[in-house]
Amino acid sequence: MLKEIFILCLTIIHEEFVSCVPASYQTARDAILNAERQQRLGSQIQLNSAELALDKFLLQNKQTTIENARVGVSDFPPSINFFQSKKWIDDSPVFKIMEKMPKGCALHVHDSSITSLEWVISNVTYRANCYICFNETTGTPSLHFFNKPPANKGCEWKLISTARSLFGNDKAFDLQLFRNLSIIVDNPDDTYVTVNDVWKKFNKYFGLINGVFDYAPVFKDYFHQALVEFYQDNVQCVEVRATLPQVYELDGTVHDQDWVVQAYQNISKEFAAQNPNFFGTKIIYSGIRFNPVATILNNVKDAIRLMKEYPDFVVGFDLVGQEGPGKTLLYYIDDLLYPSQQQPPVYLPYFFHGGETDWKDTRVDENLIDAILLNTSRVGHGFALNKHPYIKQVMSERGIAVEVNPISNQVLKLVADIRNHPAALLMTGKFPVVISSDDPAVWNAKPLSHDFYMAFMALAGEDEGIRILKQLAMNSITYSAMTSQEKKRALASWNEQWVKFINDWNTYNSNSHHVSRSDHTVKIIG
Amino acid sequence: MLKEIFILCLTIIHEEFVSCVPASYQTARDAILNAERQQRLGSQIQLNSAELALDKFLLQNKQTTIENARVGVSDFPPSINFFQSKKWIDDSPVFKIMEKMPKGCALHVHDSSITSLEWVISNVTYRANCYICFNETTGTPSLHFFNKPPANKGCEWKLISTARSLFGNDKAFDLQLFRNLSIIVDNPDDTYVTVNDVWKKFNKYFGLINGVFDYAPVFKDYFHQALVEFYQDNVQCVEVRATLPQVYELDGTVHDQDWVVQAYQNISKEFAAQNPNFFGTKIIYSGIRFNPVATILNNVKDAIRLMKEYPDFVVGFDLVGQEGPGKTLLYYIDDLLYPSQQQPPVYLPYFFHGGETDWKDTRVDENLIDAILLNTSRVGHGFALNKHPYIKQVMSERGIAVEVNPISNQVLKLVADIRNHPAALLMTGKFPVVISSDDPAVWNAKPLSHDFYMAFMALAGEDEGIRILKQLAMNSITYSAMTSQEKKRALASWNEQWVKFINDWNTYNSNSHHVSRSDHTVKIIG
Repeated sequence: MLKEIFILCLTIIHEEFVSCVPASYQTARDAILNAERQQRLGSQIQLNSAELALDKFLLQNKQTTIENARVGVSDFPPSINFFQSKKWIDDSPVFKIMEKMPKGCALHVHDSSITSLEWVISNVTYRANCYICFNETTGTPSLHFFNKPPANKGCEWKLISTARSLFGNDKAFDLQLFRNLSIIVDNPDDTYVTVNDVWKKFNKYFGLINGVFDYAPVFKDYFHQALVEFYQDNVQCVEVRATLPQVYELDGTVHDQDWVVQAYQNISKEFAAQNPNFFGTKIIYSGIRFNPVATILNNVKDAIRLMKEYPDFVVGFDLVGQEGPGKTLLYYIDDLLYPSQQQPPVYLPYFFHGGETDWKDTRVDENLIDAILLNTSRVGHGFALNKHPYIKQVMSERGIAVEVNPISNQVLKLVADIRNHPAALLMTGKFPVVISSDDPAVWNAKPLSHDFYMAFMALAGEDEGIRILKQLAMNSITYSAMTSQEKKRALASWNEQWVKFINDWNTYNSNSHHVSRSDHTVKIIG
Repeated sequence: MLKEIFILCLTIIHEEFVSCVPASYQTARDAILNAERQQRLGSQIQLNSAELALDKFLLQNKQTTIENARVGVSDFPPSINFFQSKKWIDDSPVFKIMEKMPKGCALHVHDSSITSLEWVISNVTYRANCYICFNETTGTPSLHFFNKPPANKGCEWKLISTARSLFGNDKAFDLQLFRNLSIIVDNPDDTYVTVNDVWKKFNKYFGLINGVFDYAPVFKDYFHQALVEFYQDNVQCVEVRATLPQVYELDGTVHDQDWVVQAYQNISKEFAAQNPNFFGTKIIYSGIRFNPVATILNNVKDAIRLMKEYPDFVVGFDLVGQEGPGKTLLYYIDDLLYPSQQQPPVYLPYFFHGGETDWKDTRVDENLIDAILLNTSRVGHGFALNKHPYIKQVMSERGIAVEVNPISNQVLKLVADIRNHPAALLMTGKFPVVISSDDPAVWNAKPLSHDFYMAFMALAGEDEGIRILKQLAMNSITYSAMTSQEKKRALASWNEQWVKFINDWNTYNSNSHHVSRSDHTVKIIG
């Protein structure tokens, strides 16, 4: 039908030189707009009147922000580095709704970058036995817990409490620590010119945090605190890419992988028991994509074993680390084919990072091809996905979701303006997209709300309201690694929370008459 | 076939738990890679051995540059603002080949921004009767030719020769003039935060240049010099978006549109006669998308008249000016439907700018829908095209080319890293793409070579060599507004020039043994 109307109008103008009357022009135009709208992710969702009220409010705010920026009255936060835009976002009514909204699962986050630095600094670094040293050449700090620190040439261990007193100003000392941990800077465009520049600093974060993260009491508390913070941010489940490090005790004991997995599982179970609206946690065991082939083979074997030992908790395998300069999936192909080549074959679900790169048609973005051939259950980032139309089609047909991390891709320099993020295109075609946050602690983002803000404001179109938000939340359950039974329960629970969220908003607004309040139009810069 | 192999391998791993042996894995992988390669723009082009030699050289250079940047040894010019990367690009062997390559037609350029500022300053502003004034409040200069300047409150006209002597240093004065004209700055990220910031400066260029561009002798010489520079850059034809301004003489005479079109036509004919390898020029008459509806209706009527008067020279109509905050095509719909509603209907070909925006699903990027419904012959920029899958499909099926201007889109702040330019996706699917340069003079780019460099290095994949270049050059003839006869002749002539270009390169390289010389790996910044 659409095609007929459309061609009719074009033919009239062009080939037969007969008038395309304005009426049929408008009909054709509406038909195209509707056809495109119907293809959008979330377009089929029906809203009730309570949802429509919030939809209207969200759209008003979004459109005001966009239209003001379009004509130059104000800046558009998703176009500007998150380090600079966060302050403004935090004040916006849209963000406040993102915080309150039940967002479902965070499906792409990394073990040691999910708990706020504020907690790490104010809690972890104030514990007894916490030591710090500063490299005498570079000034770079390291952290570690000891009963009695060993000699450490070039970087002498000192109790952090001593270092803090010597510094003379606790607040300033902690701010310095924050700057050493976080990748946040005042002028990100100048400080980090390329993706490699910012990854250098990003890798320093892991070097620094892991000294304390790997300390058994901190390890447990860090994970528990992550769950607290995610849940407070209205996230109901988390799937963690976990490297399962060697966790140490003060007495020199080093725990094995089973201890680590059991710690995760116990904390997770306990937290879920205390918070019945929380669906739980899954672990995706992750090797490091710079390690030798033999190491990754051992990781794969461990993953198989752990999946058997901890069914429905350890759910699969991935490789982590900067994809651009890192080793490719093809490099590890024998390791990764290992499970399927056993007699009988073993099914090890993969959750591969793939296409987290701007390098078109290089060995790096070919990772997407190998991820799919290796039957990945989801793709992490998939930033390069649109450049691979065949892979994109296969993923769409097979329901292989892409885990989109908008802020991570911006601050780690894949794309400056989130409006140019490739997921904006994926969402025009009902592609299975989920929104996650990768390493929110490192850039001081909320567990998931800031990324949802970006998805809503900049990946979705100006006229896309609450439908896309609802769809993204539901997608995060649909494409999670939960069992069908778990998904069913989770979806029912999420739905209750969604209804409450909608009702709470309507109640609040009918009382306070805040419905028409709009985003401020603030110039962020200049 | 591909699908069978692929599904076979996946099924084996996933559903039946039977081994996907490495041999069949590699077969499936190659099948996907080949399927994607065969869909690429230019993939069907067959190369002879002479072309293959240059192909190899180009690929070696490109791959070295990319691979070094990928691992952080050097920067990648297309990822960095052109103001900063130009110097490095100019030194690269790839760019030197882009310059020598016969590139066909530049199909998207604007009348008063195509001749080098170097010529404007050293030639135009050194002419007799050239006056300058500086706004007393803002310091902004204006230029104009007069016999005797009128009183001009707040901006007193002074002979530019006098101003230059008073300044005491001609070179410094001219550099200042260059800075006033060009939008180039040392720190583009800080100076221009948003697209509106840079357009403010960009519009100042037009305000400044038009004072002298509209002076009859300069008007003619400017266009002639543009043809000289384009031809020297190995561009064989040009289609100019021309606003046909009121051109003045010193005695106060103001010429009408016919005079302006005739001036273009005479200069173009003369130039083509003197340079038999040059195919010629076409004029796309262009209204300004901020003007009232009534003005645009008059423009449309003028376009119809001019096309009749100057057949095969004035070839159609467009609207120019910043699309983001500008009026939409829908705003002017009655004007634009006017030709098709005459009795009998008149066919006025349109060459609309469309989707030169990051604003998804706003009234601005809906211009793409109206452009297509109005039967546009090509689309200028189409930056938002991928966000409109239906429009994209129609354009692809109907062979409506998109005029891609990579550097313009970067420096005018639509996309920071040209690897993220949407045309990179279009090229994966044989979409009809042509490369142009928009306003090269304003950012000191060569008429077309720098944009071809960007297309080759950043829009095409790492493994795409000379095929894509050949295809882009041929596309520029295929999708030009030339008549079929003209296209046939142009293609034959271009082919001769292509053969000569290939042979010259092979001859030079077999003599000088420069074949293996690689791009330097220079850090641009930091």
